[in-house]
Amino acid sequence: MEKTLQAYIDKLDSLRFKDMYDGDFFLTWDKTGDELDAVFAVADALRFLRERNISTKIFESGLGVSLFRDNSTRTRFSFASACNLLGLEVQDLDEGKSQVAHGETVRETANMISFMADVIGIRDDMYIGKGHTYQKEVAEAVAQGRRDGVLEQKPTLVNLQCDIDHPTQCMADMLHIIHEFGGVENLKGKKVAMTWAYSPSYGKPLSVPQGVIGLMTRFGMDVVLAHPEGYEVMPEVEEVARRNAAASGGAFAKTHSMAEAFQGADIVYPKSWAPFAAMEERTELYGRGDSEGIQALEKRLLAQNAQHKDWCCTEELMKTTRDGKALYLHCLPADINGVSCVDGEVEASVFDRYRTPLYKEASFKPYIIAAMIFLAKCRDPQAVLKALEAQGTKRQFAE
Amino acid sequence: MEKTLQAYIDKLDSLRFKDMYDGDFFLTWDKTGDELDAVFAVADALRFLRERNISTKIFESGLGVSLFRDNSTRTRFSFASACNLLGLEVQDLDEGKSQVAHGETVRETANMISFMADVIGIRDDMYIGKGHTYQKEVAEAVAQGRRDGVLEQKPTLVNLQCDIDHPTQCMADMLHIIHEFGGVENLKGKKVAMTWAYSPSYGKPLSVPQGVIGLMTRFGMDVVLAHPEGYEVMPEVEEVARRNAAASGGAFAKTHSMAEAFQGADIVYPKSWAPFAAMEERTELYGRGDSEGIQALEKRLLAQNAQHKDWCCTEELMKTTRDGKALYLHCLPADINGVSCVDGEVEASVFDRYRTPLYKEASFKPYIIAAMIFLAKCRDPQAVLKALEAQGTKRQFAE
Amino acid sequence: MEKTLQAYIDKLDSLRFKDMYDGDFFLTWDKTGDELDAVFAVADALRFLRERNISTKIFESGLGVSLFRDNSTRTRFSFASACNLLGLEVQDLDEGKSQVAHGETVRETANMISFMADVIGIRDDMYIGKGHTYQKEVAEAVAQGRRDGVLEQKPTLVNLQCDIDHPTQCMADMLHIIHEFGGVENLKGKKVAMTWAYSPSYGKPLSVPQGVIGLMTRFGMDVVLAHPEGYEVMPEVEEVARRNAAASGGAFAKTHSMAEAFQGADIVYPKSWAPFAAMEERTELYGRGDSEGIQALEKRLLAQNAQHKDWCCTEELMKTTRDGKALYLHCLPADINGVSCVDGEVEASVFDRYRTPLYKEASFKPYIIAAMIFLAKCRDPQAVLKALEAQGTKRQFAE
Repeated sequence: MEKTLQAYIDKLDSLRFKDMYDGDFFLTWDKTGDELDAVFAVADALRFLRERNISTKIFESGLGVSLFRDNSTRTRFSFASACNLLGLEVQDLDEGKSQVAHGETVRETANMISFMADVIGIRDDMYIGKGHTYQKEVAEAVAQGRRDGVLEQKPTLVNLQCDIDHPTQCMADMLHIIHEFGGVENLKGKKVAMTWAYSPSYGKPLSVPQGVIGLMTRFGMDVVLAHPEGYEVMPEVEEVARRNAAASGGAFAKTHSMAEAFQGADIVYPKSWAPFAAMEERTELYGRGDSEGIQALEKRLLAQNAQHKDWCCTEELMKTTRDGKALYLHCLPADINGVSCVDGEVEASVFDRYRTPLYKEASFKPYIIAAMIFLAKCRDPQAVLKALEAQGTKRQFAE
Repeated sequence: MEKTLQAYIDKLDSLRFKDMYDGDFFLTWDKTGDELDAVFAVADALRFLRERNISTKIFESGLGVSLFRDNSTRTRFSFASACNLLGLEVQDLDEGKSQVAHGETVRETANMISFMADVIGIRDDMYIGKGHTYQKEVAEAVAQGRRDGVLEQKPTLVNLQCDIDHPTQCMADMLHIIHEFGGVENLKGKKVAMTWAYSPSYGKPLSVPQGVIGLMTRFGMDVVLAHPEGYEVMPEVEEVARRNAAASGGAFAKTHSMAEAFQGADIVYPKSWAPFAAMEERTELYGRGDSEGIQALEKRLLAQNAQHKDWCCTEELMKTTRDGKALYLHCLPADINGVSCVDGEVEASVFDRYRTPLYKEASFKPYIIAAMIFLAKCRDPQAVLKALEAQGTKRQFAE
Repeated sequence: MEKTLQAYIDKLDSLRFKDMYDGDFFLTWDKTGDELDAVFAVADALRFLRERNISTKIFESGLGVSLFRDNSTRTRFSFASACNLLGLEVQDLDEGKSQVAHGETVRETANMISFMADVIGIRDDMYIGKGHTYQKEVAEAVAQGRRDGVLEQKPTLVNLQCDIDHPTQCMADMLHIIHEFGGVENLKGKKVAMTWAYSPSYGKPLSVPQGVIGLMTRFGMDVVLAHPEGYEVMPEVEEVARRNAAASGGAFAKTHSMAEAFQGADIVYPKSWAPFAAMEERTELYGRGDSEGIQALEKRLLAQNAQHKDWCCTEELMKTTRDGKALYLHCLPADINGVSCVDGEVEASVFDRYRTPLYKEASFKPYIIAAMIFLAKCRDPQAVLKALEAQGTKRQFAE
């Protein structure tokens, strides 16, 4: 692991990422491999500085607007932490879970909240076909506002989770893997099992499994997506994963057997999600305001879900992974057998053994978000990092 | 338009506004013309500095307390932006829509939230005869708290909308006009049509039309207030408008014809509001907790309202304005025909044509609020502006 | 009263409080007398600097996380003010009033919100036997997170009110007393009457009376706890009070007569609280989800409560105190006869006479909280205070 800031700067010097300046971050597969590496390098560099009590504020004032269309504690705090790290004050805009506020209203609201906004973080993962579209609308609205002279600056949009991808989560997962395996160069050929797991709450977003197969296939790894029949993810994202694997010299495969996915895996990510087709159906039902239809769908989903309680990350399954010691990942909170539910995604003893690594995995997220903002806001990120270190403002006054 | 900070400072040097120091901002007609001009000059100066990436922080720490007795996104963000611009952290106090919390409780709460507060922004526009009174109570409570040595500083009160006036909105509208017409000296004789317009939501506050006629009559303009019979505004404010017009060499007239108001107008402000008498009645009914009476009143108001769907800002009407090109104003959000409702305040094509100017109009509000605070907090605003420029702290770290 | 910062530094030089560094603040009786004196000295020193417009920021960035398990305006603002004073941005986590979120979840959530947190302030006073335990769990979780390398720093936990103690309130009350009596050296032998008083709301927490008898018995004062039969506080805390009194050369006595407690008192603190046994019963009923049982209990409590309307701080009672001029204390808001209720804790004319001192009492709280954080974060608090004064950064830009 690098011990000087210069190592991160050298890494950045070797990468091409100029297009990230003044840009947004929607989906990892919008970005080149160099651009993703730049995010990892800046995230590590910011953490390097903070661990040494050196200020990483690149803003003296300014707002970071968070827009959550779903309840959120972890993402809210990760975003707030990232903004604080860079000197931005968070201002929350809670729009509720409604599907309204698209079109005309989006354009207007986006501008009205952005007069002093340097970044807008959006979480909108509730409805298939909606979240990503909404984020694009907001980004276009404020870019237009900037061109029209309405806004003094173009706020950078950071996708804090949409219906398609969850880039800040999956990039944090990935940076955790890179650290655990001692560098991205050690990942070639490693087997990743992204598998469905049972949870009593049956309607979780697809953005994590989709984000994982869309991102982890880019590092030459052997990615297996496992789920019961009926729990397919978006076909477009599977296509992305296939293309990525081909380009990176890795592999992407699908199976309906959790055991097959775990067999010899270096990394396992067992997690519940809702079936894509059912989510599409739900979006339509909500669109029509058909509450009877929604109830019927939920009943059907619960019944379908209950058939797959055997999809659990057990000690037995863990033993079948590489040396019985695969790295267990989860975006948290997990549904733990006998702790948060009777039957869930993982056995308590497995979860317990990996608690510290899991918390570390989560700890990368604020830095990933901050790095995305940093790269969008700094024309010359290396120079800014150098200047921050040279300036050496103490984050905490120490005497 | 001025291109140096010195021009704004010169302007301030020509004005008398010493009484604004340590003061509050309740109603525009409490202030002299010079004082309003000072707000405009400081607002422009702060924007000048921010556009050049120069910090305008006059506080190194301190709180800006916002107190909303009604839901609000735009005002909340404008206030948060203004506070952030000056270095204050926003702390929200949501009291709900209740009418309680007057008297004893106000005095106490006002002090309890103000130990570190440099500004308190209040929006309380729900009940006729209440909002302004409440703001006065809060301002008196904290002034007393300061005198008694309870508070380390006297928080400045900024009226973010009351039952009588909406000074931050109307001052932003006015600064927009000044910029559009190339200076306040070009406004003499210009015709302003402040007119009622139909909206399916019939109970909007009167503070905007009242604020507009109370402010725009001070610049020698020819202000016409148009509304259907029964939609009168507060007589006291009409009286203010009449006196202003007489003093400024302008005019103030009333009509029940939207067409008459639009005829040859340079500026049009078509907007729905509730009838004053009905609002008074509603306040009384709420006071008595008479929910049946409130329902009956709402039904009556809806019926009355529905008779005036023809009060809409159409393309046809716009053609009758000066060269068919009057400046269209709105405080947003507008009720747009076929977009946010079937019948509303304005035709979609009219609104579309003015979207960018409307967003610019709104963009002045954070600067207006910041200027009000700045003038209350700086004993010598010109010297502070000069010092900010000389110091030249970058708002965003740029390398 | 001291007039130089050096006086506070000299005071600190005479005290032993090294163990406060990197510590938490749960209960005043966890702390030595020197440690409490250090909190008072730092609180006064921070106020001294702020009154002179000198920045007391010891953080350039970082979060102060507030976790309220009960509604709160005053405590929220006190905590926000303290954080702002030190340079931390507040991020609120509202968990609602539920009893859930203990155990596994606490450990995880505590870490997930703490990646950039320097302090966590918790108010959890609803259930006997729960609040303090919960705070301990959170503090242990983040200490473990720090040891495991998950967190970049250990957040300091500050008890903003639990089921046992309310240290920030009682320390503020105490600092107010110290100022009013001209120094801690003048308190020996002074009589304090901590007495129950009637309020129509019968379920108020016990943490104030418990905190008062647990703290005020440490200064050689003669503390009397008065309440009707059935309104006992926790026996463990009475035991603490007894031990304190013995050690400090003061006294601790109990009575069922308000008149006896007031007789010749120098300080009176008449305040409603719920009976401890009933609170224990309520906690159990909530634990079992027995809503019928809760209703029955509430009915019984109301009836019991109504028998003690004569427990009121009247003018007549005040006349029996030392020279008829005892210092009247309250944590606010008080239930005032004929103002906030028909029958309450205090007569309006008594409350009115003490309003300014009451507000001053409250004004110490932000400084007490800030001092607790300051002492946990600064290895050498005296040096930091000196450096802050030498540096002399203006809190408000003054020209």
